[in-house]
Amino acid sequence: MSQEVVLGIDIGGTFTKLGLVDKSGSILMEDEVRSTEHETIEAFIADIHHHINQRIREMDNKIELMGIGVGAPNGNFYSGTIEHAPNLMWKGIIPFVKLMEKQFAIPAVVTNDANAAALGEMLFGDAVGLENFVMITLGTGLGSGLVVNGGLIYGNDGFAGELGHVRAVDNGRQCGCGKRGCLETYVSATGIKRTVFELLAEENVDSAFRKIPFSKLKPKLITALAEEGDPIAIKAFERTGFLLGRSLADTVAHISPAKIFLFGGLAKAGKWIIDPTYKSMEEHLLPIYRDKIQILPSALLNKNIAILGAAALSWKQLERLKS
Amino acid sequence: MSQEVVLGIDIGGTFTKLGLVDKSGSILMEDEVRSTEHETIEAFIADIHHHINQRIREMDNKIELMGIGVGAPNGNFYSGTIEHAPNLMWKGIIPFVKLMEKQFAIPAVVTNDANAAALGEMLFGDAVGLENFVMITLGTGLGSGLVVNGGLIYGNDGFAGELGHVRAVDNGRQCGCGKRGCLETYVSATGIKRTVFELLAEENVDSAFRKIPFSKLKPKLITALAEEGDPIAIKAFERTGFLLGRSLADTVAHISPAKIFLFGGLAKAGKWIIDPTYKSMEEHLLPIYRDKIQILPSALLNKNIAILGAAALSWKQLERLKS
Repeated sequence: MSQEVVLGIDIGGTFTKLGLVDKSGSILMEDEVRSTEHETIEAFIADIHHHINQRIREMDNKIELMGIGVGAPNGNFYSGTIEHAPNLMWKGIIPFVKLMEKQFAIPAVVTNDANAAALGEMLFGDAVGLENFVMITLGTGLGSGLVVNGGLIYGNDGFAGELGHVRAVDNGRQCGCGKRGCLETYVSATGIKRTVFELLAEENVDSAFRKIPFSKLKPKLITALAEEGDPIAIKAFERTGFLLGRSLADTVAHISPAKIFLFGGLAKAGKWIIDPTYKSMEEHLLPIYRDKIQILPSALLNKNIAILGAAALSWKQLERLKS
Repeated sequence: MSQEVVLGIDIGGTFTKLGLVDKSGSILMEDEVRSTEHETIEAFIADIHHHINQRIREMDNKIELMGIGVGAPNGNFYSGTIEHAPNLMWKGIIPFVKLMEKQFAIPAVVTNDANAAALGEMLFGDAVGLENFVMITLGTGLGSGLVVNGGLIYGNDGFAGELGHVRAVDNGRQCGCGKRGCLETYVSATGIKRTVFELLAEENVDSAFRKIPFSKLKPKLITALAEEGDPIAIKAFERTGFLLGRSLADTVAHISPAKIFLFGGLAKAGKWIIDPTYKSMEEHLLPIYRDKIQILPSALLNKNIAILGAAALSWKQLERLKS
């Protein structure tokens, strides 16, 4: 008998990651295609179809593809579209679910990448059984998935959970969205990089960062240098955590979650980012919320959480369709 | 045959309002008792019981009391308690539901007053059928009830939805909660009063407010003077709306509601508060959320929404118990 799997897809600006995932959350096969190589969205989808079919043949057709789940920037669960995603090359409103279902002839579903991450944590990570939690994804930007009463918040238009764009600093740094002072201009891979250079300007201390141009600084190095005691690296994490914690205190005043998970490159910095974030959050919380909430790295930090989450979304859809 | 009703209770710092409410949201009887007159919570509850029994007798016992719903500051839906409510005279954690059920021998349920208001709007006001909306109550402080996916957000601890204490201004006004710059220190009956006096200090213009001491200023007068063209009154509303709108933009980034309702004395100011709030919210919104959200006064502005909401909560509980 063949094994039932779904296709989890994580669409990023440069690469699109593919995974065949069974019901227990095991990834049986992983692959990727370039997101930037195709002139049209139809060509891109045809390429995914080609890749997956080939891989299924390589597995001696022992699996049966049941559904498709997609995590994408500005992916809209309600409409099945990807809308005006700033980092993708396809502009406007893309009817992604419709195109996928036409190509694959099985049910497809889309959500934004941070919502997919929250679902991944809920089905296969440390949020199993949690009714109220927050997932913060720290990549080039800051994404978020909010879960209350056991379900994701999609909001009226399908675009709820954009904590990357709450007001972190009045009249602060220029954001890609056109506003100033958005949280992701401070708290993200790019944000902490900007903070390192702000600190190089403000402070006089010696630092390994003084030899590295802005365009060459990789966020990973900030953790490595913090471990070595570099004062700019340590201060950059403190400042980043202060702003993240202060904003999370306001998120708690909205939805009062049990736990807050961090995912992504910056989350891999562990205590360097988590300790100052927790301290600042507690300091800014309304007293009734204090000493109740955990901030911790995602249990799936070293896995492709968006593939797992997109797959989880597909499994949920298939269940709904069955009932 | 006797008519089935529930008792809706709205506990405030000075008065506690009581109403017998039928299933369609009609208030058959209203009454009130002083919240401050009783040494113990038990004496307070015995007084409510006495009042209600007397009123039911006056109605020739033609009604049957099925359940009790309570809206109270810091009321906790999960635990049935009222916890450390700053404006009530009973300190600590009060097992309110337990005490009410003991006294009345029917099911009781409690939530905070702003959540009750949201339920009132959802069952008997303009939020009928809305899956995602926000209720802001503007009284002495600022309360909020958040509804997503058709249900109230209670959060992990039952205390979600404290938008009165999000950070409106960095290192701003002293708040009763111990923090500084909380939204309710600017946006509430007390908040706008503080703003009037801030403006009297900042500006040189003539204003009727110059003859009124702080302790005598009633918030209603601010609307009346705005109508007469008083520049301080108009500017006070603009400043209040600016800060409310800016904070609501962050609330939208969390839950993306279809509508935001305002309730309470300040909401009765109508366009004076709503226009600057809407303008500021739109200005601070992430572009994907613009031109989608309405801010409007509660449909129950001149009714006791908390009694209706508390009653709605009780009706919901009775349905749950039946099924």
